[in-house]
Amino acid sequence: MGYKVGIVGATGAVGQEFIKLLGEREFPLSELKLFASARSAGKQVEALGQTITIEEATETCFEGLDFVLFSANGDLSKKLCPAAAKAGAVAIDNSSAFRMDPEVPLVVPEINGEAARAHKGIIANPNCSTAISLMGAYPLHKKFGLKRMIASTYQAVSGSGAEAMQELEDQVKAWSAGEPIEKNVYPHQIAFNALPHVDVFLENGYTKEEMKLVNESRKIMALPDLVASCTCVRVPVMRSHSISINAEFERPVSVEEARAAIAEAQGVDLVDDPENKVYPMPLDFAGKVNCGVGRIRKDLGYENGLAFWVVGDQLWKGAALNAIQIAEYLIK
Amino acid sequence: MGYKVGIVGATGAVGQEFIKLLGEREFPLSELKLFASARSAGKQVEALGQTITIEEATETCFEGLDFVLFSANGDLSKKLCPAAAKAGAVAIDNSSAFRMDPEVPLVVPEINGEAARAHKGIIANPNCSTAISLMGAYPLHKKFGLKRMIASTYQAVSGSGAEAMQELEDQVKAWSAGEPIEKNVYPHQIAFNALPHVDVFLENGYTKEEMKLVNESRKIMALPDLVASCTCVRVPVMRSHSISINAEFERPVSVEEARAAIAEAQGVDLVDDPENKVYPMPLDFAGKVNCGVGRIRKDLGYENGLAFWVVGDQLWKGAALNAIQIAEYLIK
Repeated sequence: MGYKVGIVGATGAVGQEFIKLLGEREFPLSELKLFASARSAGKQVEALGQTITIEEATETCFEGLDFVLFSANGDLSKKLCPAAAKAGAVAIDNSSAFRMDPEVPLVVPEINGEAARAHKGIIANPNCSTAISLMGAYPLHKKFGLKRMIASTYQAVSGSGAEAMQELEDQVKAWSAGEPIEKNVYPHQIAFNALPHVDVFLENGYTKEEMKLVNESRKIMALPDLVASCTCVRVPVMRSHSISINAEFERPVSVEEARAAIAEAQGVDLVDDPENKVYPMPLDFAGKVNCGVGRIRKDLGYENGLAFWVVGDQLWKGAALNAIQIAEYLIK
Repeated sequence: MGYKVGIVGATGAVGQEFIKLLGEREFPLSELKLFASARSAGKQVEALGQTITIEEATETCFEGLDFVLFSANGDLSKKLCPAAAKAGAVAIDNSSAFRMDPEVPLVVPEINGEAARAHKGIIANPNCSTAISLMGAYPLHKKFGLKRMIASTYQAVSGSGAEAMQELEDQVKAWSAGEPIEKNVYPHQIAFNALPHVDVFLENGYTKEEMKLVNESRKIMALPDLVASCTCVRVPVMRSHSISINAEFERPVSVEEARAAIAEAQGVDLVDDPENKVYPMPLDFAGKVNCGVGRIRKDLGYENGLAFWVVGDQLWKGAALNAIQIAEYLIK
């Protein structure tokens, strides 16, 4: 017995990881269908040992599927997720289109997996920085009761897609060769730089990405009154996001208990031995299922506070892996 | 009329900037002496149109000098700054050796220049992240009254010296050529990575660098009760530090007033037009006298709060420039 799975956006950076992870995790597949824009339709690709012809993603292409994993832009998701649901599939959507919809569960399986069961055909996958941040913050919340969360991110270029990863590579190679540096994906050079700008700016001066972390954290942890603030920064790193978090809690904290809470939690590794220069780093967490948490210490900014550092693969826990884990949760 | 100036650590990354800046700023020099370790002594270097022989830095080499700019390790500063002071010079020290000494002023001229006048022969130059952070935080403090400051840094490799800049360059070039990446300065690869580790770890789980920002900020702004917390992170950027700051104030804040306070302040540029993708970035502030402040917005984490982003050249405002500005303050 297996499940019929479709992937929308199969040719993108996250789409490719969907395929890879379905194979690596031995997801019980009976059929895999790949969808993309009309431009890519008709192309044949090798995926999990088969040759699959990419089909155009349309409102009528989802018949007979059990799960459709979406990694498309929000507009396409808005149009096609309901179509997938109507066709009887569960649409697991990586865009921000449905995340704050009260009818749609927003799920990190290790945190609120149960919420997924209440779906009405669509389940939203969180923003990448949010999912990774909460892998560190949630186990501490369970232990001490999270009141306030201040986050500054160090985000990899993979969050902007395969073209952005190529752009960083091209810029670094051009710089190394003494050639002029070109930019297309980002408005400014990303190599050797830091851009305090991820996603578009809103009227309140925050970026959409920053507000996602605030709002999605509240929804996923069921903490509507959580006080949260965030600054999102793109750095010249390929595919893992890092987040520096300062958190205030309801109850007294201890570093020992915090470390124990992380060590016991599912989906995170405690990587916290600063004396031996051991802490999570983006290079070490690219292609890792688990996120890493380290630099756990009493936050000097609050009576009951902890400062810590979380790292996770943007393409995996921040996108494709979490979506597949949602499907795994539903079928287990 | 001019001043006799000595530079200790003349061959290092900061030492080289001392020389360049004395020239660019037309510091009224009547004599320039360059000191370094025994290893470099005897070498002849071109500096400000003269050929100068580097002398070994010893306790007896400072006779007749008006200012001695130190960029050496803390142990050497501890030994030689008092000798320079005893010889009648003002020692301006870039190490952390004297910064928290109650007898020694710790000075950012735009903030507490007057404190420099109370020196007893030694003036301390702040830690790089601190000086740059406060160029943004202090004008806002004057306006609104700073209570709490949470900072996460994005620090350039120049803070670890010329070898570290070379290491990042070498790693990027090796990566571009498909060759193995070597590391010597940092315990982990810095190219395409982020290291939550600047300076050594202390018993409380913070690094020395992080505690410098906490303690030096209190001293420079004369705010002994300031609540502050900091996470310091090294990123693959050459020579400008960036700092993401979340600040809570005594009095109600407005973004407009905050922008006006930054725009009026000495030594900082307001670079804050997000709609047009204008914000300070490390690439733009390398080799700039002023620091840049942008991304100013109400902090969602506090009733009276502001979030903002400060960028400045680590080698300049974070080191050589601020030291020279201290000397300029004293002679103006």
